[in-house]
Order: sequence, then structure tokens, then C-alpha cells
Amino acid sequence: MKSDAYRAAGVDIDAGNRAVDLMRAAVQSTYGPEVLAGIGAFGGLYDAARLQKLKAPVLVASTDGVGTKTKVATALGMVDGLGEDIVNHCINDILVQGARPLFFLDYIASSRLDPELVARVVAGAAKACREAGCALLGGETAEMPGVYAPGEIDLVGTIVGWVERERIIDGSAIRPGDVAIGLASSGLHTNGFSLARRVLANEPLTGNHPALGRPLGEALLVPHRSYLTQIEQMEKRGRIMGLAHLTGGGFENIVRILPAGTAVRVDPMAWPVPDLFRLIQRLGKVEEAEMYRVFNMGIGMVAFVAPEDAPAVLAAVDEPAWLIGQVVPQGVEGERVIWPWSNLPS
Amino acid sequence: MKSDAYRAAGVDIDAGNRAVDLMRAAVQSTYGPEVLAGIGAFGGLYDAARLQKLKAPVLVASTDGVGTKTKVATALGMVDGLGEDIVNHCINDILVQGARPLFFLDYIASSRLDPELVARVVAGAAKACREAGCALLGGETAEMPGVYAPGEIDLVGTIVGWVERERIIDGSAIRPGDVAIGLASSGLHTNGFSLARRVLANEPLTGNHPALGRPLGEALLVPHRSYLTQIEQMEKRGRIMGLAHLTGGGFENIVRILPAGTAVRVDPMAWPVPDLFRLIQRLGKVEEAEMYRVFNMGIGMVAFVAPEDAPAVLAAVDEPAWLIGQVVPQGVEGERVIWPWSNLPS
Repeated sequence: MKSDAYRAAGVDIDAGNRAVDLMRAAVQSTYGPEVLAGIGAFGGLYDAARLQKLKAPVLVASTDGVGTKTKVATALGMVDGLGEDIVNHCINDILVQGARPLFFLDYIASSRLDPELVARVVAGAAKACREAGCALLGGETAEMPGVYAPGEIDLVGTIVGWVERERIIDGSAIRPGDVAIGLASSGLHTNGFSLARRVLANEPLTGNHPALGRPLGEALLVPHRSYLTQIEQMEKRGRIMGLAHLTGGGFENIVRILPAGTAVRVDPMAWPVPDLFRLIQRLGKVEEAEMYRVFNMGIGMVAFVAPEDAPAVLAAVDEPAWLIGQVVPQGVEGERVIWPWSNLPS
Repeated sequence: MKSDAYRAAGVDIDAGNRAVDLMRAAVQSTYGPEVLAGIGAFGGLYDAARLQKLKAPVLVASTDGVGTKTKVATALGMVDGLGEDIVNHCINDILVQGARPLFFLDYIASSRLDPELVARVVAGAAKACREAGCALLGGETAEMPGVYAPGEIDLVGTIVGWVERERIIDGSAIRPGDVAIGLASSGLHTNGFSLARRVLANEPLTGNHPALGRPLGEALLVPHRSYLTQIEQMEKRGRIMGLAHLTGGGFENIVRILPAGTAVRVDPMAWPVPDLFRLIQRLGKVEEAEMYRVFNMGIGMVAFVAPEDAPAVLAAVDEPAWLIGQVVPQGVEGERVIWPWSNLPS
């Protein structure tokens, strides 16, 4: 007989407790000896002794959500990948500054708390955390009747990592002549879903889709890829001077790390654009240039290296990767990402 | 002519950029020299040199939301306090383990991004961060048409703080005979809003409310109080052996820090229950016991100290605080929080 009045108001404290019970083993599977207190505590405790061994430790933190990818996942009842999505998105967001993950926290909210759904999302997050050596240190589930549309969820993640101060990657060393290496994305990752869903609204999500050779829903829900292992392999073969995670804003994200006075000339023929993007473009009658400003178009991460390092760095990657462009001086037109269709004098 | 297709799908990248412009000054006002990169970077960078001066640094992290307090705030257009709510809630959540804040990250999502609203929320968060010496290191705004009900927002915060390992407060030192000091809350804080809103649905939010002597909406929206300064004052006068932040679950939160075999006997007559709680109870016909399991009832933080320390610790607090209970051995009935109405043999 607990919390009857609260349950009548749409909030079920027992459901929250049941969700915690269901996710406990998955969360604890991410704990190393650094985790001094995790699930159940007011705050998670993480032993920071390893930071004391650094010359100049810097903490790197980022918060993000998975956007309306949740709508595709809940419509199909396939929420298992969302946890991987948010963890890997966050890992990549700090990886571009040279950081390695320490711990992650999640937040899952909905109009009505479904303990089994929450546990499945958290299990995916725990899997991605284990693979990255990252502790799932804490989290929160919230039941907010009237704020969320019925059946919908939001999923938010926060990651904290570390980097040695002199190893921070910020793009400032990028010079004209350096080359851009593009690493294959696994799909849309977690960006552009509001546009994709509108365009694809009349397409069946299940059953083989002729343009894709597999179900559309499945193609949309492929989890966001983590580039942690690939970047670690690449760094052994050459100095990475800049990294851009292609999230919301697509290739425009590259501008965030280019030094003043430089631009990057990208060759869109250098890599195969996956069918899913072309399907969205065709059905939505989206202009070519716009596609590259919203979607990753098959490239999830861009790394800048000196041209002489490029062959060895490329060879170090055991996933698809391509030389996709080169840094040039910025022209008077001001364009920072230059495409064949950019309206520049030749 | 950017992002036309995306805007038609309900996502306005320009609005996101405008929100960032509007909040920039407030966010930067929270930066100390430790912030190496903040707003605009993929991840925030925070110089962790101060951790190297500790014997055994421990990072403490917590994520939380403000719940459906957002619905009252958006209904009245009074969102300025929400940022303070989430920051102070998070500060208190790690304070109870003995931690002090380093940095905070926010996440604000809605069906449609309102840059001015976002900027007002962030300004409140920045104010609370400044007061706590905490950097507002990062954040994310998300536009999720179809996931959020029209006009509604969610607000999530993540805090990271530090504590010297030997100074972690976990309640394990609490013994029978120790006393509980209750620190006054400022109102509902951020808990119990779904029940409160249902019960108060027919009450006017504006105009003087006869039961409160002020407008109901204003009373509901008083920001969550931070106990950082008070706890720091108290710690100078005596050893605090346990701290419980009374959030969702009300006084049941105390159980999370009580050692096995102990309970706390609380005297509900020891402090004045604010009128707002009694109004909710009366209109909702909520049982007395249930009120203390959902709401803070006027006590936002409970501190456990040895009885001989209690007078000095109480005197150190310049806000209302009361001796509200005492630790006793747990009885065979198993109750951990014992009230006058608890059904125990005398």
C-alpha cells in the first residue's frame, strides 16, 4: 500500500524501483575497481587516483541525447540499440578532443515508466560502456505524465573522460595540405531523424525494403558507432591533428575544428554513400548540399593528418576508411567546407 | 538558406544557434581558470590539477531532472527558476556524500526550440552555478517534435564533484542515539509535482491564494534550495555522519544512509509544515503517512550528528533548522523511519 495517491497522479515509484532491480546486473557489469559506489547511491563515486599519475590531467565532459531516433525505436519495440547509441555518441564527442572515457550517466524519461523497456535500454548502454572500459556510474529514470507524448521516451547521456593536457586535440595544428580521412558510419547514427522520419513516413518499417535489401526500421536503428578503437589504432601510426564527429549539422561540424584562414575541400566521390541516405534524398527531394549539412552521408568521423602520415594511418584502420579531402587556404568567398557544387570561381 | 528541409521536418538548427548566442554570456560567467574549453566545443575541458593535490581524490557524479515542475513553469511562463532548481538539486545530491561541485552540464529538450526560453533557463542555471563556484561546462538543447507534448520541456542536469576519499560521508558511522537535524526546504523543491498538480488542478495559479497568502504558482515555483553553504558551516562545528537529501520518496530517502539494524524516530511536530503541503493534503485527501513519503514537508536535508555536537552544529546554521529525530535500534517490525502513526507496539 505504498504511494497510492502518487500512482493515481501518474507516477509509479514502485515501477522505478523495479526498473532499478532489472538493470542492476547490467550496470554492475561495467564496474571496475574504480567504482566505489554506484547504483542506489545519491551520486556515483569514482576513484580518480589514475589522474594523479598524469602530468596535467584535464577532465572532458559532454551531454547529449539520441533525438527522435527514439520514435522509430518505440514504434518498432526495438529499443535495445538506443543505449549503445547514446554511449557511443558521447564517447565520440570527447574522443575528438583526445579524451578517453572514465564514466557515463544516463537519463531516461517517458510519460509512463516501463521498467522492462528501461532495463533493455540500460542493458545496451552497459554493453557499450563495457566495450569502452567506461563505468556506467549513475542514471535516472523519470516519469513525466503530460510532458512526454504517450509511448514516447527521451534518452540523455553524460560522459566524463580524461586527457593529458599536452595531448588535447583541438585542430589548431591543422595546416593547408593536410588530408582528411573519413571513417565509415554505421548508418544515420543519432542525427537527422526528424527529417528522415518525415520523408519516410509512408514507407513500411518492417519487411524487406527493395531500395535497401533489408527492413527500413532495422537500417534506421543500427547503433551509433564508437570510433574509440579505430582512433587508438590510428594514433599509433601518425599524429592526428584534428577530429570532427559528424553529428547534427553533418559535415559543417568540421568547421568547428579548422583553424582560421583554412577550409577543407571534400571529394564526395571518394566514398560510397549508403543507400539509406539516397532513399531519404529521393523521397524527400532534398538538395544534395542540404543532405551533407544534415546527415553524415556514410562518414561518422573525420581525422586530419599530415599527407605523409596518411598511408600508414589509413592502413591501421580495420574498418572502411577513405581519404576524403584536403585542407586548403580559405578563399575570399569564405566557404569553410568546399564541395564540387560550391559556387566558387575556379 | 540553411536547413530548409530540416526546418520543414520540425527542427530548426538556426534556433539552436540563436539559443547558444543568447546564453553565451551567462554560461561564461561561471568559468574560472579551470575551464579550458566550454560553450561551442564538442566536450567541455576542465583542468583537474586541483585533484592532484589531494591524498586520494574521488569523483562524484549525479544526473537528475526537475520532473513535472516544468509544466507549472511553462504554464505560467515563469521558467527562470528551473535552472536553479536543477543545479541545486544536483549540488545537494553529491553534497550528501561529502562532495563539492566542480562542473555541471544541462540538457533542455522540447517539441519546438524556443531560444529565449532556453536562454532564461540557462541563465538561472548559471546563477546557481556561480553561487556554488561550479562551472557550467556544457549542455545540449534538443528539438524533438512528436516526443514532447506541445509547449512542454524537460530539463536534465549532470553534476561532477570531488571528495577526499577519507572524507566521504556514507552514513556508516551513524549509531543509535545520534540525532537528526532537519534543514528547512524552500517549498516542494523538485519533487511530488505530478501529485501536486493533479490535486491543485482546479486552483488558480495566479492571484493571492487565501490558504497561502500569495499566488499558488509562485509558491510552487520557488527554486530548490542548495545546502552547500549551510553544510559547510555545520561541518566546522561538528562531525556530520550522514546526510539525506529529501527528494522523490520524501523521508524514505533517509533509509538509504542508515546502517543496518538502525532506524530513525522522527517527531513531525518538531518543525512547522508549510501551508502549501497542508493545502495539497487537504484538497487531495492524502493520508498523513503518504505525505511524508512523497513530499519533503518542509525539510529538504537531514543531517545526522552525535548528540553532544547537535547544539553547536544547529547554532552554526543561519537558516531555519530543527532537531527532528533520533536514531534508535531497528525493531522486529522492520520499520526504518518511525513516526507517531507507525503501527508499532509501544
